[in-house]
Amino acid sequence: MRLHTLKRVLVGTPLPTAQFRHERLGKATGLAVFASDALSSVAYATEEILLVLIAAGMLALSYSLPIAIAIACLVAIVTTSYRQTIYAYPQGGGAYIVSKDNLGVAPGLVAAAALLIDYVLTVAVSVAAGVAAVTSALPALVPYRVWLCVLAVVGVAVGNLRGVRESGKVFAIPTYLFIVSFLGMIAYGVIASLFTLLPEAPYPPHPPGLEGVGLFLLLRAFASGCAALTGIEAVSNGVQAFRLPESHNARVVMTWLGTLLIVLFLGITYLTYDLGIAPRETETVVSQLARRLFGDGPLYFEIQAVTMLILLFAANTSYADFPRLASILAKDRFLARQFASQGDRGVFSNGILILSALAVTLLIAFHGDTNALIPLYAVGVFVSFTLSQTGMVVHWLRLRGPGWRWRAAVNGAGALTTGIVMLTIAVTKFTHGAWIVVLLIPALVAAFMAVHRHYEVLAEQLSLDIPGALTPLENVVLVLVGDLHQGVVRALRYALAISPAPRAVFVETDPERTRRLEEKWASGGMGIPLIVLGSPYRSILRPFTEYVDRLLATGGDNRVVTVILPEFVPARWWQQFLHNQTALLIKGAMLFRRNVIVTDVPFHLKR
Amino acid sequence: MRLHTLKRVLVGTPLPTAQFRHERLGKATGLAVFASDALSSVAYATEEILLVLIAAGMLALSYSLPIAIAIACLVAIVTTSYRQTIYAYPQGGGAYIVSKDNLGVAPGLVAAAALLIDYVLTVAVSVAAGVAAVTSALPALVPYRVWLCVLAVVGVAVGNLRGVRESGKVFAIPTYLFIVSFLGMIAYGVIASLFTLLPEAPYPPHPPGLEGVGLFLLLRAFASGCAALTGIEAVSNGVQAFRLPESHNARVVMTWLGTLLIVLFLGITYLTYDLGIAPRETETVVSQLARRLFGDGPLYFEIQAVTMLILLFAANTSYADFPRLASILAKDRFLARQFASQGDRGVFSNGILILSALAVTLLIAFHGDTNALIPLYAVGVFVSFTLSQTGMVVHWLRLRGPGWRWRAAVNGAGALTTGIVMLTIAVTKFTHGAWIVVLLIPALVAAFMAVHRHYEVLAEQLSLDIPGALTPLENVVLVLVGDLHQGVVRALRYALAISPAPRAVFVETDPERTRRLEEKWASGGMGIPLIVLGSPYRSILRPFTEYVDRLLATGGDNRVVTVILPEFVPARWWQQFLHNQTALLIKGAMLFRRNVIVTDVPFHLKR
Repeated sequence: MRLHTLKRVLVGTPLPTAQFRHERLGKATGLAVFASDALSSVAYATEEILLVLIAAGMLALSYSLPIAIAIACLVAIVTTSYRQTIYAYPQGGGAYIVSKDNLGVAPGLVAAAALLIDYVLTVAVSVAAGVAAVTSALPALVPYRVWLCVLAVVGVAVGNLRGVRESGKVFAIPTYLFIVSFLGMIAYGVIASLFTLLPEAPYPPHPPGLEGVGLFLLLRAFASGCAALTGIEAVSNGVQAFRLPESHNARVVMTWLGTLLIVLFLGITYLTYDLGIAPRETETVVSQLARRLFGDGPLYFEIQAVTMLILLFAANTSYADFPRLASILAKDRFLARQFASQGDRGVFSNGILILSALAVTLLIAFHGDTNALIPLYAVGVFVSFTLSQTGMVVHWLRLRGPGWRWRAAVNGAGALTTGIVMLTIAVTKFTHGAWIVVLLIPALVAAFMAVHRHYEVLAEQLSLDIPGALTPLENVVLVLVGDLHQGVVRALRYALAISPAPRAVFVETDPERTRRLEEKWASGGMGIPLIVLGSPYRSILRPFTEYVDRLLATGGDNRVVTVILPEFVPARWWQQFLHNQTALLIKGAMLFRRNVIVTDVPFHLKR
Repeated sequence: MRLHTLKRVLVGTPLPTAQFRHERLGKATGLAVFASDALSSVAYATEEILLVLIAAGMLALSYSLPIAIAIACLVAIVTTSYRQTIYAYPQGGGAYIVSKDNLGVAPGLVAAAALLIDYVLTVAVSVAAGVAAVTSALPALVPYRVWLCVLAVVGVAVGNLRGVRESGKVFAIPTYLFIVSFLGMIAYGVIASLFTLLPEAPYPPHPPGLEGVGLFLLLRAFASGCAALTGIEAVSNGVQAFRLPESHNARVVMTWLGTLLIVLFLGITYLTYDLGIAPRETETVVSQLARRLFGDGPLYFEIQAVTMLILLFAANTSYADFPRLASILAKDRFLARQFASQGDRGVFSNGILILSALAVTLLIAFHGDTNALIPLYAVGVFVSFTLSQTGMVVHWLRLRGPGWRWRAAVNGAGALTTGIVMLTIAVTKFTHGAWIVVLLIPALVAAFMAVHRHYEVLAEQLSLDIPGALTPLENVVLVLVGDLHQGVVRALRYALAISPAPRAVFVETDPERTRRLEEKWASGGMGIPLIVLGSPYRSILRPFTEYVDRLLATGGDNRVVTVILPEFVPARWWQQFLHNQTALLIKGAMLFRRNVIVTDVPFHLKR
């Protein structure tokens, strides 16, 4: 009962179905709600590129600029491509639905597996990066990094279990604070740079030619930077959340999002390049940048706080996406049923709990280190991009609606590009951790299919010619007794309630005890026969199961044997260990016997 | 079922009660059976003294000789004292029985707690010392020390679970091999020393006066050496195992044992002193001694092998003592009932399993290091010595049989000496680990008493005026349904078997589902009413428990509600996670409701 109270304090009292809010979003709030995931990656994407490049020396850091430009082009392509998806799927076009509709069940499941994995990684990476923003500003907290990460996940999880449906305005605060602060910082930085208000970069501002750095390293730096694209698909999943005309509004927001992402990402990368900032163990690149521009004043702390805030909101996005996708999969019978249903606060609590558990595991395993998590990240997202864009191509080719040619071409270009990037990411980051995801995706798909097969086979086994009239089973009722006391008397009275002719069964381990019991039994005039089974090996289990098996063998298929076990329900937890061991054994032995039903008749001890 | 097969392979097929062997021991085999525990401590007792002394420098090692002489005197006193116990308790005079009989229940329980703790430590210390004998000879095995210890415990445990009642002759081999080998080594060593066949000791052979070494350190060295006395009480516990006249034979064996222990212990200590052997991290003192005397030849390896063997047999002794004492305590209702009964091989399997688990835990926690375990050891044994000798004094004073004066004096001297030693051990080793035992003994006694109180209160709650005739309880039968399929039909047919008027209960979370179910129900003509409960919060649990509570409230004290849950028994283990979550919740909620009986009606899935 105390567990129950704890749940109420943390999660709140149940909400009636009628009370769920349905709110439609305008363009500005829509951007706020869906942008946090994609934009927040600006906080770490540049750093991840630099971290790869630095392996080839400080000079190689200059390559960050061309790489960032390539990624910006990729953002433009993906954005355009997704505008088509929004157009075609105004009811919401997640990668699972688009892939399943157009390519078939298996590609749909691959997309779903990839997305589920990436949602978990979004939580882990965002929380780790958010905590890194904090520890950059307050280095004294570095040793508590993992704990801060776990705390953040728990906080976000509890908020989501409460199921407070924030109005979009709550999202507006951190998203717009972030956009304004970062745009301001970039503008100030660019001006300061143009008018050389800041010291010069410690390395020449132009790349010294490709021969200095291996192509593989450049591709890996590009692959790491592609983390910037995660979350960009959020708008297309949530078209239904927009005000009418939904599809139009969502497309406008999609364009805004792509543009903002390009501007912020290029701006940050340019400034780190221009100011010659190199990645450091204990301070993020964005923190170094802000410190160089603003010193240690309030503006610096504002940037760090806003960075942390948007990253937490980005993690929060997965708490909507993961349980929703899990529930869609569960409704399609690819996941366990319990993911399909909402808890008493109207949220998919099981999905929330699983997501949190997985994210915490990852954070602990990788010591809350963003850089260690990045190689696993983005593989899944690009798998889902590729599949969903390919699905869109098939969609246009099949429908041949107005403008189908150029629409198919746009999505085809998107599919091709994201496909190449997907392979690049998988190959260049394979040994650094991407192999985990590459193996996990088919494993998850296999699990989805096994679950699906089970539910199908189950339905077959349960299918029913509706019976005309039900006939009762033939029921033999046994009460296993070890003594004659109040608990046993209660069990016997219950046996009399469910059967006209129950039998009491006693297993003899000591003839003296049998004699005493038989005496008591006779003097009581119980009206229930006492059957004594011999036990040459002192085991209670074996003679009893043999007796039950004999009863089953002599009856027809309609016969069941009910085994009644008088049990104590102790007043204190530790007393449990002093009782009911035999009952436990009997239950274990009966578990796999068809046609045996075990019933505990509890006797509640008062002290 | 595979678990069952594993058990059979390891433990063997059950043995019928009639097959238990009862063998009486002669004096020579009696010595073999009871001596291994006490004599084996010779393998480490000297080393433990030296390890304490070396803190005061190499010169201090010379004090080992006077300390060993003091311990030898103690052995003589305790041996004499225990001869009295054997005389007075021919039926077996364990410390628990003697203390309880003469001093009362609480002192008896203190002795029992102390002994149980020391039995666990005997296993841990003996196994660790046995493995040290092996790793001294084969240093390559040092890194696997802990694993070897665990392996040894598991081996001894499995042997005991099989319950092979070895004839005493099996014990004769290691015990007499040990006695002969060690006596031979000592004789050879003394001769070699007298005729100066060996190099001289690296430090002067006489102690340089007390001022060099603190008294506390000397006392602690003495306390560590007292480990030599553990197991000396074994003979008095097992008087009944001897041939007639049991008491006489046991006393003779007791004298032999005391004498042998004194000779072996003094011999080893004298030689290590004379040869100037100092304790080392990776080689035991006995191994160094044997190597000095015999070189690296077969005689050296024989000594190490015999040492290991007797230490394993010493550990084995606890596997007889611990379960036996636990079963006596369980029969007196101070421990859980399941310790009282023998398993299907005629051994106290629960006691064996607990003892092994505790010993393995200790060995892992202390890294299989004898020296780390020693400070915990011997406290318990001396508590039990003191209590049992004090009990004997009371015994003689009360009985006043022939020679009661001198007998009381002997036991009084024993009680006084062992009491002083007990305090010395507890104080000098307190901060090194003895505090654990000092705290554990009262905690265990409190637990014994709590268990006892529970069984007493239980008996009171269960006590019974034998009923004249049993009346059936009034039983309301509910079947919780979520759908209508074969599993539910089976549950409904069972409900009809145990009640003339069962009800089916459905909790509505979605009106559409309700409509479909009601349609199926009507077309089936089930003959059982379907009750639909509304659920504004989508929870199945709450409306259902409220309904059950209403049923209970409207009935009398004789009414019970039977909740039938149709459950799937899956064909594969992982399918379990896809079902029965609601059933689990309902069971949890009903667990603490009096007058509710939950019955699973299983439906076995075939695939």
